[in-house]
Amino acid sequence: MELRSQSTPEQIQRAHHSIKNRISKDFAKDKISRMFNGAGISVQGKNKWDIRVHDERFYNRIFLKWSLGFGESYMDGWWDTEALDQLIHRLYTSNTAYKKSNFPAKLDMYKARLINQQSKIRAQKVAHVHYDLGNEMYADMLGDTMQYTCAYWKQAQTLDEAQAHKLDLICRKMHLQKGEKILELGCGWGGFAKFAVENYGVEVDAYNISKQQVEYARKRTRGIPVTIHLADYRDAQGTYDKVAAIGLCEHVGYKNYAALMEVAHRCLKKHGIFLLHSIANNFSTTHSDPWFNKYIFPNGMLPSIKQLGETMEGLFVMEDWHNFGPDYDRTLMEWYHNFDRHWPIYQEKYGERFYRMWKYYLLSLAGAFRARRIQLWQVVMSKDGVPGGYESVR
Amino acid sequence: MELRSQSTPEQIQRAHHSIKNRISKDFAKDKISRMFNGAGISVQGKNKWDIRVHDERFYNRIFLKWSLGFGESYMDGWWDTEALDQLIHRLYTSNTAYKKSNFPAKLDMYKARLINQQSKIRAQKVAHVHYDLGNEMYADMLGDTMQYTCAYWKQAQTLDEAQAHKLDLICRKMHLQKGEKILELGCGWGGFAKFAVENYGVEVDAYNISKQQVEYARKRTRGIPVTIHLADYRDAQGTYDKVAAIGLCEHVGYKNYAALMEVAHRCLKKHGIFLLHSIANNFSTTHSDPWFNKYIFPNGMLPSIKQLGETMEGLFVMEDWHNFGPDYDRTLMEWYHNFDRHWPIYQEKYGERFYRMWKYYLLSLAGAFRARRIQLWQVVMSKDGVPGGYESVR
Repeated sequence: MELRSQSTPEQIQRAHHSIKNRISKDFAKDKISRMFNGAGISVQGKNKWDIRVHDERFYNRIFLKWSLGFGESYMDGWWDTEALDQLIHRLYTSNTAYKKSNFPAKLDMYKARLINQQSKIRAQKVAHVHYDLGNEMYADMLGDTMQYTCAYWKQAQTLDEAQAHKLDLICRKMHLQKGEKILELGCGWGGFAKFAVENYGVEVDAYNISKQQVEYARKRTRGIPVTIHLADYRDAQGTYDKVAAIGLCEHVGYKNYAALMEVAHRCLKKHGIFLLHSIANNFSTTHSDPWFNKYIFPNGMLPSIKQLGETMEGLFVMEDWHNFGPDYDRTLMEWYHNFDRHWPIYQEKYGERFYRMWKYYLLSLAGAFRARRIQLWQVVMSKDGVPGGYESVR
Repeated sequence: MELRSQSTPEQIQRAHHSIKNRISKDFAKDKISRMFNGAGISVQGKNKWDIRVHDERFYNRIFLKWSLGFGESYMDGWWDTEALDQLIHRLYTSNTAYKKSNFPAKLDMYKARLINQQSKIRAQKVAHVHYDLGNEMYADMLGDTMQYTCAYWKQAQTLDEAQAHKLDLICRKMHLQKGEKILELGCGWGGFAKFAVENYGVEVDAYNISKQQVEYARKRTRGIPVTIHLADYRDAQGTYDKVAAIGLCEHVGYKNYAALMEVAHRCLKKHGIFLLHSIANNFSTTHSDPWFNKYIFPNGMLPSIKQLGETMEGLFVMEDWHNFGPDYDRTLMEWYHNFDRHWPIYQEKYGERFYRMWKYYLLSLAGAFRARRIQLWQVVMSKDGVPGGYESVR
C-alpha cells in the first residue's frame, strides 16, 4: 500500500496498522530466532533438538508471553521438535538471554508478593487440579511404587528399583529405629509410609490434602501402623522421633517455608531428625514459571539455599545437604516413556492437547535438570544437633 | 556504716558508693550463679566441670563483659575448672540465658557494620597477631602435617592420620586429576598444596598474607610445582580447573563472602569445582565473639547458610554440603594435649597468662563444637553445574 497526500484518513490508518503489524511480527521473529540460534537451535533445521514451526504466530506468542507462550504454543501444535528435553537443555545451557531472563513473569511475582497463595484454602487448588487427576494414569506413569518424587539411580537399573532405593536412602538418612514414631508432612500415595513401616518397623502419621491420594494411601496401608490425615501439614500435632517432608516444600510457597520448619520443629523431640526432600532453585525467587503455574503446579515454587537457610535459623542444625538433581532427569525421562506407552488408554478421555501439555511438562523439566538449572535436594536437619555428630549417608 | 542527719557530704557519698557496690555485687553474683546452676554447674562444686572461684570480682566481670569477662577472668587466674571443655559444652547445651544471649557484643556488632574490618590493609592484623606467633609452637601443637584446620576422624586413629585423611578427602571431593591447575586461597603452611601435588600430580598456586606461613610453605614445597604468593586472596588472577579455600572464610568477614565467591568464580573454568572448608554458625551474625576477636582471631567471623547461600546465587550450583563439626571437638582436644605437653619449652617466652589464654581458646572451642553450637562445613560448588551431576564423597 502506497501512502499519498490525497489518501483518506481511513487509508492512512489502515496503512499504519499494517506497517506496525509487519514490523512487530518481523521484530519478534528476528529476536526469537536469534535467541534460538544463540543456543544452537535452528528453526526448520535437521537436528533432533531443532524446531519445526507450523504456525508463524509462534514468534509473537513467545515474544509477548515468554515461557507461557512457548508452552501454550506447543500445546496448540504450533511447533514441534524431535527431542524436547534436548531443546530445553540447550536453551538453558547456551543462551544468555533465555538464561538470565528466567521468563520474567513480573505479574506473577507481584501477585505472589501480595497474597499468600498457599494459605490453607488456596493450597487445596493444586490438590484438585493436579493430584486428583485420576490415580490410574499416575500408576501407569510412575510404576509400582507410585512414587511421584525423584528416584535415586546410584545403584539402580530400573525405575522401580531406583524408587525403592530412594525410599531406603531416606530411611537410612533418618536413622529409623524399630518402634519410632514418624511424622510425614504430605505423603503422596502413601509409598514412604508403607515402606518405612514394613522395612524399619516404625509407626507413621501422615498429612495430605488430596482426597484421591489419601483414599489410595489408606487402602494401601490398611492393617499396618499408618494413619493418614486428610488435613493440611500445618495441622500436625504431637511429638515424634523423626519428621519427613518428601516433595511437599515445592507446594508450600516461599511465605510458608518458615511455617514448614516450625511445624517440623514443634513436632520433633530433642535431637530428632527432620528430612526435607525437594526440587530446588539456584537462586531466590518469589514466583514460579508461569506455564508450570498455570498448567501443572498451581501456586508451586522452588526454594533457594538462602530461603531455606534463613527459615532454619534458631530451629535446626543443618547436618547434611545432598544434591542429586541429575537423577531427576532420568526419572522424568522414565515417566515420560511410561506415559507415552500408556497414552492410548487415556487418549479419548483427555485429548491431544492434554498429551502435548503433559509431554511438555515432563520433557522440559528433564531438560532443566540436565542443564543443572534446577536441583534436587535432600537436607537433613536436627533439633539442637545430633550429639557426637551426624554421619552422611549416600 | 550508719547514715545520720548530721553526716558530712563525704560520709554520705562514701555510704552510697558502698551500698551500690554491695547491691550490684550481690545482684551480679546471684544472676551469674543462677546461670551456671541452670546448666548444672556449681561454683565450688566437685564435678569436673564445676567452677572454683579464686577472686570474687569474677561475677561482676562476667556480668558486665560477658564472654570477654569470662575469658579474661580465666586468663587472670580468677577461676579454674578441671574440664573447661565440659563446662563450655554444658553452658551451651543447658542454659537458655547463655544460649540465647550469644554474649551480645553490641558494640562489636555496630563496629562490624560501620567498617569493613577485613579490608586488604586491616586483614593483615590477624596475620601478625595470630599466624606470625612462631612456627615452632604451631608445629608442636599441630603435629607433622602442620594442618591448622579440622581433621577428619572417620577412619583415623591419630591426629596425623586424621589430618592426612582430611587432605585426601578434599582432593577426592575436588576430583583432582593429574596435570590440573589448582588455585588455593589462603594456604596456611602449605600442607594442602604439598599433599595435592605429591599425591594427585596437580600444580598449585596459593595466596596467603602471613609472612611466616609463606616462608615456611615455600621451603616445604621447594622443587615441586607450587607457587606461593605473599598476597591477598582478592589479588588472585588466571584461570584454574579447581579452587580451594580451606580455613580462609572464617577470616574474611561477612562483608567479603561475596568477594570470596566472586574471586573463586572469576578464576574457575566452566564446570570447575570450588571447595570451601570453614567453621560455621547456626545463625547469621555480623560480629564475632568479643573474647575470640580480641585475643585469638582479630576480625574473624563465622558464616551462616543464609549468608553463604545469598553470595553463591548467580555464581555457583551447590553440589554438596558436608557437616562434620564434631570432628573439630576431637581435633581441638588433640591440639590442646600437644600444646600442654610441649608447654615447658615455651613457658618462659610466653608466660602463664598466654598459657591460660591458649588453653581457654582450644578447650572452649572444643566445647562449642561438642554442643553443636558451631559447625565445620565443606561445601562443594561448581560453575554452571557439573554435567551429569556431582557424586558426594565422604
